[in-house]
Amino acid sequence: MNDQTGSPPRSGGPVDPAVIDDLVAANCILADQGVLDGYGHVSIRHPGAAGRYLLSRSKAPAIIAAEDIMEYDLDSNPVDQQGRLMYIERYIHGEIYKARPDVNAIVHSHSPTVIPYSVTTVKLRPICHTSAFLKHDVPNFDIRDCDGMTDLLIRNEKHGRGLARTLGEDDVVLMRGHGNVCVGANVMAAVYRAIYTEVNARLQAQAMALGGPIKFLAPEECALITGRTDTNFQRPWAMWKSRIAAN
Amino acid sequence: MNDQTGSPPRSGGPVDPAVIDDLVAANCILADQGVLDGYGHVSIRHPGAAGRYLLSRSKAPAIIAAEDIMEYDLDSNPVDQQGRLMYIERYIHGEIYKARPDVNAIVHSHSPTVIPYSVTTVKLRPICHTSAFLKHDVPNFDIRDCDGMTDLLIRNEKHGRGLARTLGEDDVVLMRGHGNVCVGANVMAAVYRAIYTEVNARLQAQAMALGGPIKFLAPEECALITGRTDTNFQRPWAMWKSRIAAN
Amino acid sequence: MNDQTGSPPRSGGPVDPAVIDDLVAANCILADQGVLDGYGHVSIRHPGAAGRYLLSRSKAPAIIAAEDIMEYDLDSNPVDQQGRLMYIERYIHGEIYKARPDVNAIVHSHSPTVIPYSVTTVKLRPICHTSAFLKHDVPNFDIRDCDGMTDLLIRNEKHGRGLARTLGEDDVVLMRGHGNVCVGANVMAAVYRAIYTEVNARLQAQAMALGGPIKFLAPEECALITGRTDTNFQRPWAMWKSRIAAN
Amino acid sequence: MNDQTGSPPRSGGPVDPAVIDDLVAANCILADQGVLDGYGHVSIRHPGAAGRYLLSRSKAPAIIAAEDIMEYDLDSNPVDQQGRLMYIERYIHGEIYKARPDVNAIVHSHSPTVIPYSVTTVKLRPICHTSAFLKHDVPNFDIRDCDGMTDLLIRNEKHGRGLARTLGEDDVVLMRGHGNVCVGANVMAAVYRAIYTEVNARLQAQAMALGGPIKFLAPEECALITGRTDTNFQRPWAMWKSRIAAN
Repeated sequence: MNDQTGSPPRSGGPVDPAVIDDLVAANCILADQGVLDGYGHVSIRHPGAAGRYLLSRSKAPAIIAAEDIMEYDLDSNPVDQQGRLMYIERYIHGEIYKARPDVNAIVHSHSPTVIPYSVTTVKLRPICHTSAFLKHDVPNFDIRDCDGMTDLLIRNEKHGRGLARTLGEDDVVLMRGHGNVCVGANVMAAVYRAIYTEVNARLQAQAMALGGPIKFLAPEECALITGRTDTNFQRPWAMWKSRIAAN
Repeated sequence: MNDQTGSPPRSGGPVDPAVIDDLVAANCILADQGVLDGYGHVSIRHPGAAGRYLLSRSKAPAIIAAEDIMEYDLDSNPVDQQGRLMYIERYIHGEIYKARPDVNAIVHSHSPTVIPYSVTTVKLRPICHTSAFLKHDVPNFDIRDCDGMTDLLIRNEKHGRGLARTLGEDDVVLMRGHGNVCVGANVMAAVYRAIYTEVNARLQAQAMALGGPIKFLAPEECALITGRTDTNFQRPWAMWKSRIAAN
Repeated sequence: MNDQTGSPPRSGGPVDPAVIDDLVAANCILADQGVLDGYGHVSIRHPGAAGRYLLSRSKAPAIIAAEDIMEYDLDSNPVDQQGRLMYIERYIHGEIYKARPDVNAIVHSHSPTVIPYSVTTVKLRPICHTSAFLKHDVPNFDIRDCDGMTDLLIRNEKHGRGLARTLGEDDVVLMRGHGNVCVGANVMAAVYRAIYTEVNARLQAQAMALGGPIKFLAPEECALITGRTDTNFQRPWAMWKSRIAAN
Repeated sequence: MNDQTGSPPRSGGPVDPAVIDDLVAANCILADQGVLDGYGHVSIRHPGAAGRYLLSRSKAPAIIAAEDIMEYDLDSNPVDQQGRLMYIERYIHGEIYKARPDVNAIVHSHSPTVIPYSVTTVKLRPICHTSAFLKHDVPNFDIRDCDGMTDLLIRNEKHGRGLARTLGEDDVVLMRGHGNVCVGANVMAAVYRAIYTEVNARLQAQAMALGGPIKFLAPEECALITGRTDTNFQRPWAMWKSRIAAN
């Protein structure tokens, strides 16, 4: 399952244990919040080396620990595999980090209420101020358009590049019949977006079920909200973290 | 973020610690019941000074403690900020306390099943005896009507006054694409209303999904229920409190 | 709030503490299963005196204990009130015990998915073998037909008699804009029915949302299921009880 | 309730305690995940004797322990009953093990979101890569077609054979107004399928509620996914198991 050729990439250097702890917490928080099932994953870009990223070995997010975190280059080759099983879909992370220098954290989930939007013609759109980062119709990546009939997994650079292209300059991309990806400048932002993308999906579905025309956020409102400099990601993060500590 | 000018307002005086404990419990109860996410807040009017109110510093309701409670005047200036971060939207509280002398407790939430009613033309209406306090079509405040394109936050007195005007003499007001506010003569009543507004939203959505004409509460029934003098808010409060104590 | 006149009724005699424990467990189980909110109640007929029943004082079911159980006659007068607050709606219990000698346990709940069926013209009907006790269209009591405009509470014998009449020989009756009542020959059967009435309401709502004609249970199927002598109420009861013991 | 005639069948021999522990874990996991209520069951084929299977005595899955596991022959006669109450519907297991030599584990559940598909003309179909094992329209067994009016239970070999015939070479079969059965080559696969059949039912219902044409998985996609040799059932299993250990 290791795709590397020749010698393994060099490490980007040691990482502050507090940074690793936040990455582990991100995994556990998203599992606790029902966004991640046993098969999702969360990565961060190496804080000291833009060409490396950090991601758990193949393990359910709810139960990973600091020692499970591995380092990869952007072609998704492990720096030091030590025989550990790797996520097949790590190319999601490598290819988005290549395409988006502003992105430092990535969540791939099967967030349950979001998937239905990936298989219909109804668009997921921002309906509440807490999910203004969705901005407009959320783009939807159908791997069938990229590589025909597949097992739907992002198994290689081609798939990852296709996904990154559909994401474009946005912060969320759906994956048809599969899940979604949320990105952020830091792990708190990416986690926030993964949670509130699920929340938005629920709110929109319920509003549509009530019926009547729906007033989505206006583009100007989204711009004013996402342009805020006083958004306090730390506020819910502290709460989410306290929940996993209590488990 | 502190809007005060000149010297800070004077304190309304010391507050019974049991009153503060109830305010802290209200925050934790509403988080436990799924009404408050990381961004809502609960306040009470100062029991000894009608021109002051008590509200946590900027922190997720699930994890606040007695020492987080701050005091504000009705212009939402802090009595003694001590460098603490404040809720941007504290003007919700100040302006409603100004407009409604009968109100002594306020909950602002992003109660998940209520938001959809704020973005459609379908009205939230009382459907069950436990939510007769809704009385009729619940009013809906669209900040766009008050101040055009904004980030949807109640950031100042103008926004707060607009919201208070839409609330009028009611006990609940929706906020388009944002959430809602519930008020009460005391903290138990406000908490009760916040929880049963969410319950009513679920019941109404499910009844509408079943189809057929819906028999809402008649205005006379609402009046008879809200006019009861034997309503026992203490009964569920004790249960809600025992849940957070067990956490 | 005590409606009794003259001297209080005599006690039906001491009750086996294990019977009281089961009644307390029934309250806690139904709260844990989300059937009872802070305002429902569960009673049993006095095992040694058909003219008496046992019911908690006015307290949220989730937190009642053995010492909260009070004894009433079938006119719902307390044997020994000791100044305790009583459920206003205890007439539900007294009047049904009068009308139905086969009934030895009663649950009154605001079971959340059941209420919507009480306010539409869509009938709750048995859709799954576990809820065959519903038998046919579940009857719906509208207190407006019994006593015009009220606060919807079963406040007296007249209301209770009207409700018992609508229940008839069935095991479940809806209460418009309010909740429902489930009865049984013993407390396990009544608890089972309260839980699976809620389950049936969810299954039916989901089947209706999917669309297409629905195949409900045939009357013969209901009769064969309710006629079983090997139904094992003890099986889920042991599980439900283990959950509350773990809390 | 014991249908055996003559002397009881001989045992297939002792079983590794770790295998029994996995069977017990499967029961507890599926209860924790909301797939099994108090009335479902999980079996495995005897690892050393293809003509025997292992199944708990009649007990709620959430609370079974290793000592509750009994051994049966494929006619569903107990090897050593010891007076224990047996699941009436054990014929589900015996008859499927007879018909399907490739099957070594079976889950029978009342998985809540799956039942609605059993009573409408809408077909449950694979909508997400995690449930590609559904392959196509999931078959639906109506016991009325097999044996007319019954209590809907799989009470004998005739019912079990009918169910096995409808299952055919598939991995999931619905049971009208009752529940479903999921099978697998091992207990992890059967548990995985039981959980993701419920997940698929939710995703499909939500997609249908959004409206618009739905893009289900193509048959080629299902074949590519189910043909994978690197599917990691161990990954979510470890997480599910850690949850029940923490209870």
